[in-house]
Amino acid sequence: MAASLDELRERLAEINDLGRARALLAWDERTQMPSAGIEPRAEQLATLTRIRHEMLVSDELGRLIDAAAAEVDSMPYDSDEASLTRVARRGWEKARRVPADLRAEITRVSSLAEHAWEQARAESDFAAFLPHLARNVELRRRYADCFAGFEGFEHEYDPLLDDFEPGMTTAEISTVLGDLRDGIVPLLAAIAQSGVTVDASSLYGGFPLESQEALARELIADLPIQADAWRLDATVHPFAAAISPADLRITTRFDPDYLGTAVWSVLHEAGHAMYENGVPRPLWRSPLASPSSLGFHESQSRLWENWVGRGRPYLEHVTPRLRELFPDRLGAADVETIYRAANKVEPSLIRVEADQVTYNLHIILRFELELDIFGGRVELRELPDAWNARMRDYLGIEVPDDAHGVLQDVHWAGGVFGYFPTYALGNVIAGQLWQRVASELPGLDDGIRRGELAGLRDWLRENLHRHGNKFMPKELIERVIRGPLDVQPYVGQLRALAADIYGI
Amino acid sequence: MAASLDELRERLAEINDLGRARALLAWDERTQMPSAGIEPRAEQLATLTRIRHEMLVSDELGRLIDAAAAEVDSMPYDSDEASLTRVARRGWEKARRVPADLRAEITRVSSLAEHAWEQARAESDFAAFLPHLARNVELRRRYADCFAGFEGFEHEYDPLLDDFEPGMTTAEISTVLGDLRDGIVPLLAAIAQSGVTVDASSLYGGFPLESQEALARELIADLPIQADAWRLDATVHPFAAAISPADLRITTRFDPDYLGTAVWSVLHEAGHAMYENGVPRPLWRSPLASPSSLGFHESQSRLWENWVGRGRPYLEHVTPRLRELFPDRLGAADVETIYRAANKVEPSLIRVEADQVTYNLHIILRFELELDIFGGRVELRELPDAWNARMRDYLGIEVPDDAHGVLQDVHWAGGVFGYFPTYALGNVIAGQLWQRVASELPGLDDGIRRGELAGLRDWLRENLHRHGNKFMPKELIERVIRGPLDVQPYVGQLRALAADIYGI
Repeated sequence: MAASLDELRERLAEINDLGRARALLAWDERTQMPSAGIEPRAEQLATLTRIRHEMLVSDELGRLIDAAAAEVDSMPYDSDEASLTRVARRGWEKARRVPADLRAEITRVSSLAEHAWEQARAESDFAAFLPHLARNVELRRRYADCFAGFEGFEHEYDPLLDDFEPGMTTAEISTVLGDLRDGIVPLLAAIAQSGVTVDASSLYGGFPLESQEALARELIADLPIQADAWRLDATVHPFAAAISPADLRITTRFDPDYLGTAVWSVLHEAGHAMYENGVPRPLWRSPLASPSSLGFHESQSRLWENWVGRGRPYLEHVTPRLRELFPDRLGAADVETIYRAANKVEPSLIRVEADQVTYNLHIILRFELELDIFGGRVELRELPDAWNARMRDYLGIEVPDDAHGVLQDVHWAGGVFGYFPTYALGNVIAGQLWQRVASELPGLDDGIRRGELAGLRDWLRENLHRHGNKFMPKELIERVIRGPLDVQPYVGQLRALAADIYGI
Repeated sequence: MAASLDELRERLAEINDLGRARALLAWDERTQMPSAGIEPRAEQLATLTRIRHEMLVSDELGRLIDAAAAEVDSMPYDSDEASLTRVARRGWEKARRVPADLRAEITRVSSLAEHAWEQARAESDFAAFLPHLARNVELRRRYADCFAGFEGFEHEYDPLLDDFEPGMTTAEISTVLGDLRDGIVPLLAAIAQSGVTVDASSLYGGFPLESQEALARELIADLPIQADAWRLDATVHPFAAAISPADLRITTRFDPDYLGTAVWSVLHEAGHAMYENGVPRPLWRSPLASPSSLGFHESQSRLWENWVGRGRPYLEHVTPRLRELFPDRLGAADVETIYRAANKVEPSLIRVEADQVTYNLHIILRFELELDIFGGRVELRELPDAWNARMRDYLGIEVPDDAHGVLQDVHWAGGVFGYFPTYALGNVIAGQLWQRVASELPGLDDGIRRGELAGLRDWLRENLHRHGNKFMPKELIERVIRGPLDVQPYVGQLRALAADIYGI
């Protein structure tokens, strides 16, 4: 007898369906939609969001959660049933905290701010963007204030972080990213002092788009991903969307002058897709279906992109095909040349173009600035100076203008704060996972060299994917890593890589 | 002061958004979706349908309609405001008549019936399909019974017809389609007796798919359709969907052995798309945005497909390009050969492959059988015999098996009755429109010969498209044709065509 649980399941399934429909509309807008469709599409997205939200905050859902929780009271914490009511309750309680008019205001203001940001970035005019940024920050403060007294929230930044990393605190992330910074800054200095220059020119210039697209499709098809559950499309800013766990939309962009996107960005997005695809059927159509920790999500994309995709065994596997597809450019290329080019470390201005080592410093810089903003330790008008100073400190480079500095990312224009740290957290978690994988799958490298990746996928499914969104990130780390968050495996892996490439 | 009207507008806009979102999910399923996504997609579609329906039948919507109607009481019948409340009220009253459990049962049973039909058709086994058909008919009877006493409904078939042709009665359609049959049957006999054989071989065999796709895109781009508001995709059963009036999804299929689909089916679907695209902006996001008369919708597709697309002037315009694209097949083809091939009349078994003359008889046959079914004048088990007898009477051909007869269409398997007649009605309306167009746009043929189609589009916009869904079909006919429904223009046009091709 679990009548309320069944009813709750059905209601949550409808909410899930609306979210998936919204994801399809968003994917379509970015990959398929005729350009004239933009305004009606915005209305359609807003309507789906509003209706879904009304269902999510309804009194009725609250009553169903209470009734279902009573029914599953004696079930184990990690049962699907107990997890469903637990996760649903937290989501409901959080959603109820924020008044509808504040949500609407955040949406309205950030939409205007994004438009202003586009122009401000084009003209490198921070002053023009400043009032919009101020309004976004003010609204996000009010948003955070809605969570006064919410269980587990202590720091003013906690509610912002929690939307992307449930249950993770500012204090914990500060420690982890501080440790990461302290591990990477000296590593970067050592690389600079090594005097070694890596030639990455093999990846640049003259890669026909048609062959790149063929390559990208082959690389995905070669992964252990359900063959009839994915598609690949071109877009401006690559992403992966799960319209359902069996309907994965991988996107990428193709740059005729750089091969890297068609390889590692594709593996990255496919890593996200494989995570969604690995969630067990009984969790589908529920809030347990989509992992809500962006850090864990990023751990999967980074693992496939960097620890598989930039590793020697994988490059040994794919280089013959690269030679075939790009005879003019890579006909004579050897694995070592590509391996070194794929792992070149060099400080640069733009986060999305950064190598895997310096990328973390771009993130840490943003995280620290966000803490300073919400802690009132930096005036918004001083943000460019603060940005540029940290770029100098961490990466040793000068920022020529704000378009290549504080204005480069859309996140703050979109009113999104608390998101950036999850990128670096993903790297840290990927490092811990990779360490465990390496110890539990001893023949891994040989397998990858032969293109056999199913074993790795199975390990990730068994240890991580099967949990879906049942657990908070901290619980997941304990379950999957059997220890706390720890940057050392990741820093150690980067050190080993740097030793290999730069001889340090 | 029109507070209730504004609120009604917003609520109807949300309902519209949900319908458009559902259309995108359906389009995506048929053109883009990885095959493994089918089950979750069915759930997503069902959820959108259910939520939209709940909004549509809500007490709250009824109160809003009443309050808004009072506010617009003094406004003209054809004002957007009065039309909105009038159309919304009729939709609400109809939707309220049908209990939710009957709707659910219809959906469930027809879904099973479609699966059974697929197999029955493959095996030409009517007996296996019969119980499913019986269940569908029984449920549709119960559906029709829900409308006892509904204004304007007299015949048992009226409620079924009304879902596709609002306000049109069985008596009216019977007269029109009876007149059409009486015009076409002797015409067909005369064609058969003419002894003339049309050689259509120029359109068959060996048309590379890539060139066909290029052609289809060029033909659409050459039409007066908003350039940034459409896209073309391949599918199994061609259709057009309007995700918004500015986001038109045209689909077609390409057959390597027949060029006709890439030309006339594409023009047909583009005709539908241009209708949706012509609805004025103030009607968007409302129930006035999408013309609900399938007859009028079909009039637009047929007009572009047949009266423009199969006409000499248009073929003079496109034949040079056909020669270029298919040098092996059409390098030496002249306009006359293609014109005759495009207008060949020959009785055949399958509706969707029929020429434009015999097509009507396929429809009339189905309409008459539907009337007999719901009038209790034919036993379902006798349907194959009744079908085959009419095929003999109207088209003079023998049906070899039920797969090529009564089992050929999905409609009855899907529980859809009352839909077929709108196909023929569209031809009749297109004939009346074309007659008016010809008299009001004297240089039309010369313009088409030069590829100038905007004048025709503008005429259709001004006289038809701008009304959107404000009026019932009968009102529209009076407004656009300035007279009643009349088959004579259409029959006259077919006679003239037959005279031209067959010398009768």
